[in-house]
Amino acid sequence: MSVVPAIASSTGPVLVVGSGLLGASIGLGLRHLDVEVLIRDASPTTEAVAQDIGAGRSVRALRDAGEHVPEPTLVVVAAPPDVVAEIVVDALAQHPHAVVLDIASVKAPILDAVAAAGADLTRYVGTHPMAGREKSGPVAARGELFTSMPWVICPGPATGAAAIAAAKNLAVDLGATLTVMEPAEHDETVALISHLPQVMSSLLASRLQDTPLHHLSLAGQGLRDTTRIAGSDPALWVQILAANARPVVQSLYEVREDVERLIATLEDPAGDGARLGIARLMAEGNAGQARIPGKHGGAPKAFATFTVAVDDTPGTIARLLTEIGEIGVNLEDMRLEHSPGQPVGLVTVSVEPNRYADLVEELQTRGWKVVQ
Amino acid sequence: MSVVPAIASSTGPVLVVGSGLLGASIGLGLRHLDVEVLIRDASPTTEAVAQDIGAGRSVRALRDAGEHVPEPTLVVVAAPPDVVAEIVVDALAQHPHAVVLDIASVKAPILDAVAAAGADLTRYVGTHPMAGREKSGPVAARGELFTSMPWVICPGPATGAAAIAAAKNLAVDLGATLTVMEPAEHDETVALISHLPQVMSSLLASRLQDTPLHHLSLAGQGLRDTTRIAGSDPALWVQILAANARPVVQSLYEVREDVERLIATLEDPAGDGARLGIARLMAEGNAGQARIPGKHGGAPKAFATFTVAVDDTPGTIARLLTEIGEIGVNLEDMRLEHSPGQPVGLVTVSVEPNRYADLVEELQTRGWKVVQ
Repeated sequence: MSVVPAIASSTGPVLVVGSGLLGASIGLGLRHLDVEVLIRDASPTTEAVAQDIGAGRSVRALRDAGEHVPEPTLVVVAAPPDVVAEIVVDALAQHPHAVVLDIASVKAPILDAVAAAGADLTRYVGTHPMAGREKSGPVAARGELFTSMPWVICPGPATGAAAIAAAKNLAVDLGATLTVMEPAEHDETVALISHLPQVMSSLLASRLQDTPLHHLSLAGQGLRDTTRIAGSDPALWVQILAANARPVVQSLYEVREDVERLIATLEDPAGDGARLGIARLMAEGNAGQARIPGKHGGAPKAFATFTVAVDDTPGTIARLLTEIGEIGVNLEDMRLEHSPGQPVGLVTVSVEPNRYADLVEELQTRGWKVVQ
Repeated sequence: MSVVPAIASSTGPVLVVGSGLLGASIGLGLRHLDVEVLIRDASPTTEAVAQDIGAGRSVRALRDAGEHVPEPTLVVVAAPPDVVAEIVVDALAQHPHAVVLDIASVKAPILDAVAAAGADLTRYVGTHPMAGREKSGPVAARGELFTSMPWVICPGPATGAAAIAAAKNLAVDLGATLTVMEPAEHDETVALISHLPQVMSSLLASRLQDTPLHHLSLAGQGLRDTTRIAGSDPALWVQILAANARPVVQSLYEVREDVERLIATLEDPAGDGARLGIARLMAEGNAGQARIPGKHGGAPKAFATFTVAVDDTPGTIARLLTEIGEIGVNLEDMRLEHSPGQPVGLVTVSVEPNRYADLVEELQTRGWKVVQ
């Protein structure tokens, strides 16, 4: 994170339009840097709550009090995806000297709509901060929501240098990791790494609607991991999937082809080449999974993992991690596994492979129950 | 776990056929309870390694030394799925007074094959311990591998009471949680909660084979969670999916139907009812996901979650959990999130909702950076 906020050197305030989770978080983060922030929301209540939590000054409140509303130099449109383009066009017209950016999770359709409206594209830049949380609304906002998360800047062909600089400064000031991409490339990327996983998780989880609960009680971590994001907000995802329909459907054609291939194979599992067909699908999954970068954004890396059975009481897991720290080994990853029917926690720990054997032996010596 | 091992009261030794990860883990667990264990494996090396780690006495070594090989009262077949039925049939013939059980992850086809061979079904019982780890082979074995994990006992119509009792005793002695189910019901259940998630994860991950790495660097926890099990061993899964082809393909027909429905919707996202169609898919995913039981095997439960940004140095996460323990709040779940490109860890913590506000405030007072 830059020490001196780049955006604070701009000459006027930042106007945030839409003060839900993301808009209010941007407001809070900028206020922490002493940047002047104005907030506007279609809902007077949401706007008032955002002001109350310190995300900026309510434009409505200023007007009601007869006070001067300063002219923004940067407008951040943080409204729901399906109204973003319209608000961007209005903001470009209303604030003829301001840079206007949006933070919606699909970029090309918004750029197209803004261009179609004949707006000044030199002052508009689309962006996508890849952050969020399971809750929504300004009460859930956190100024540090963007810390260490990617923030993609997607300039269009007409976007001016000043607009790009303003977007980069905002992202950097809020602690995010910058990436620059063309709008269409961005949309194809998120279709694959975000929207398709959401669809597959929902398709899988929807199969569980009628499964008896005593069957589901046998579920392991695999089912929990693959279905976790199926718990996401349908209203938001309808807008996202509808807006990015074309790249998502391209990926779904490929999924359909693989599903057809697997169905044909499993309908005759003793047939010629059937086992080879299954093996190929599994190996392709291996190959794709291995390409996902690990922690620290580095190349994919294999860590050694082991599992410790711990009593499910406060402080036990802390004590385990304290001892791992005492032994001098850095924790690369950990997960707490669920134990159907028993009050025992299973903590799976990932460490550098060359520290694995020593650590397991030392933990066992100290009385920890290394189970796997 | 029972204090007095039930199986130790049987009159003879346990013969474990197949001394890979699971067979050797069963041997180790029984040896911890002072049960006499004999081990046999198609590979002399694997059998010798299993003896060396203390999983039991090698039958081959006893014979080579001209020593007496005692007659087992229980035979546990822990061989690869595609040879299990044949080994069960042989064991029933070779040991005419022993109970024979297997631990393969698909049950009905094995029972059918054993029945078709005209073997003594009264002494045979299929079982499925739902435990494993990413590594294989006897070196990876752990006597506590089955602690708190489900172990499904699947008697056939002809299975006798003594066989069922022996299987239950084995599972309980090894610390597992017992469930009894008919073979066909078991196979349908694992098709849905284990095999379909594996297939969906592989289908999703295989789409990433040609994705540029700088696109994958934008991946969040959602993609990591949904694709983690796509890293599983293809050789094993070919056998599992081929053996349980019928129930898996039934689920895949339903997935195909939903994929077709979604493709039709996304090909015309502005069409009549398109958004409703997407919303319905998402809501069905919500409904299925919400039915998966939470920790402790209880009813699904919503915990309050928040995220803390921590330095990625040894001991920091331990200190966080220690302080949560000091504040007196029990950790219901936690996950360590990956931070692309930055050496900052994001720890997401789940707690009882009624402790959420106090805990977050207290942690912030203590200087922790609660980011979401």
